[in-house]
Amino acid sequence: MAKTDPLPSWNEGKTKQAIKDFVARVTTEGSSDFVTPNKRIAVFDNDGTLWCEMPLPVQLFFAVDTAKAKAEADPKLGQTEPFKSLLEGGLKAVAAQGLKAVAEIVIATHTGMTVMEFEQSVRDWLKTARHPKLNRPYTEVVFQPMLEVLDYLRANGFLTFIVSGGSADFMRVFAEETYGIPPPQVVGTTFKTHFEMRDGVPMVLIDPALDVFDDKEAKPPAIAKFIGRQPIACFGNSDGDRPMLQLTIRGRAAEVPGFGLIVHHTDGDREFAYDLDEHLKWGQLNKTLPEVEDYGWVLADMKKDWKTVFPATVQKAQQGK
Amino acid sequence: MAKTDPLPSWNEGKTKQAIKDFVARVTTEGSSDFVTPNKRIAVFDNDGTLWCEMPLPVQLFFAVDTAKAKAEADPKLGQTEPFKSLLEGGLKAVAAQGLKAVAEIVIATHTGMTVMEFEQSVRDWLKTARHPKLNRPYTEVVFQPMLEVLDYLRANGFLTFIVSGGSADFMRVFAEETYGIPPPQVVGTTFKTHFEMRDGVPMVLIDPALDVFDDKEAKPPAIAKFIGRQPIACFGNSDGDRPMLQLTIRGRAAEVPGFGLIVHHTDGDREFAYDLDEHLKWGQLNKTLPEVEDYGWVLADMKKDWKTVFPATVQKAQQGK
Repeated sequence: MAKTDPLPSWNEGKTKQAIKDFVARVTTEGSSDFVTPNKRIAVFDNDGTLWCEMPLPVQLFFAVDTAKAKAEADPKLGQTEPFKSLLEGGLKAVAAQGLKAVAEIVIATHTGMTVMEFEQSVRDWLKTARHPKLNRPYTEVVFQPMLEVLDYLRANGFLTFIVSGGSADFMRVFAEETYGIPPPQVVGTTFKTHFEMRDGVPMVLIDPALDVFDDKEAKPPAIAKFIGRQPIACFGNSDGDRPMLQLTIRGRAAEVPGFGLIVHHTDGDREFAYDLDEHLKWGQLNKTLPEVEDYGWVLADMKKDWKTVFPATVQKAQQGK
Repeated sequence: MAKTDPLPSWNEGKTKQAIKDFVARVTTEGSSDFVTPNKRIAVFDNDGTLWCEMPLPVQLFFAVDTAKAKAEADPKLGQTEPFKSLLEGGLKAVAAQGLKAVAEIVIATHTGMTVMEFEQSVRDWLKTARHPKLNRPYTEVVFQPMLEVLDYLRANGFLTFIVSGGSADFMRVFAEETYGIPPPQVVGTTFKTHFEMRDGVPMVLIDPALDVFDDKEAKPPAIAKFIGRQPIACFGNSDGDRPMLQLTIRGRAAEVPGFGLIVHHTDGDREFAYDLDEHLKWGQLNKTLPEVEDYGWVLADMKKDWKTVFPATVQKAQQGK
């Protein structure tokens, strides 16, 4: 009897074969490329790699919805910029005021509370929010083929990590249930925090200041800091992932030829075809694409390589937990 | 037949019983205090909790030895302060110049190189260095009863983390082999780093600047940042661990009554009796001790509770790896 296909949402072809060949290569005992399980570290970008990042990264939808609700509940705040513009003209009107105004929206919805309070606000939002174009809960705009890769790698002894520009505390709310990635394996953008003893209750407060924006050149240092070990497999989709894709292939600690896979957003019908648009503020692949051959990265062409894009069934995260 | 004792180096008594009772309580399905394995997070301080921190924390011995070797190899450096004083009068002479001089010794031996180069220098040092009083390799001045606790917790589905004032990159060199704690589960002091592409090789360089000194009030934020989940068990030995001990018992995310254990250094014959000395710059327990009863922490009295202090056999880390 044939073995069950571990990657049923991938069309047969060289991309799917490359993933399977890599896994076979590093897990075959006796092979010169064999890697012990404790060193089978795989890192995944989140936005655009594990889930949809268009027309906005999901976390920005959260920031906008939450800031609007705050401004509506607090008329004084609602009359203050950039909240006034947000209520009147949405994110577009805020963005017109520049990056600082957008940052204010983010700071107002992500800081000035305990980590637990923040997580609760994300959890509440996820329960009812739906992607405006794909008309699904956000935890269902994840890519089914990538969920299969995560499972496949773990079944082969890999430790799977997220290393993303999204905030770690945001992703930790759903990453365990949605991706099977527990909080300690979620690396992302962080805000400054401090410890406080309030009425006898010890707590960690999030301060209104960015700690590290975990993107581009910040990703390899984040890997060094949070994981402490060279990844042997890296999955990304944009120039923001280029340094960690480079590190995975040519970092000095690379004991075996690593594996890099890039999700190429080519499918305007089922998702969005966008990554070559030079006007984009995120999700561009233009710097990375010319290096694909040199580094030996595998290009996963969404249109050609993916049989299915999104999961068919309702995710557990939506069942009210 | 009786079950094998999971804690053979602990004398029978209420301390040993408290550890076993806690583990039984959170792992018994159907019990109201049952905790699912993914939430069985245990955090351990390192210096003074998992290994000996007297007469100096091990990492300072490393800094001194390595700085001396550098200053001897580079006569120009050897004539510059604080290296000149270090060569002439040891750490004492440097400390007499103040904390800034000691910090210079640390910066010179921990930064200005890649993470891999730093790790190699620690690995090389550990191969031959020996504790000056206990006359053993440093990876053998670990506490056998605590090694048993680590194993016992993991056998019961716990994830074990180090959360220590020592530097993460220093501890990661030996923590996996010595404690069974892999690099991603080692949280510690960090230096600033940056990504660099040097002659086509992507690398992470350690900059000569402290990022976070992971001690005291910095420990709960580090737990929030690196682990992202409330610990249900915390093991420490000094006032530096007080905030994380408090968080474990009374943090808002505490779904079950947590467990806190404090290693009390009372054994001047087998180790060092020091933690009530008010002149100590580290390892003092004076602020924490009065709160033991209120928080329900368990005091492990080294003299009374530990049958053995150090492991009898040679650790694997010393066999030349």
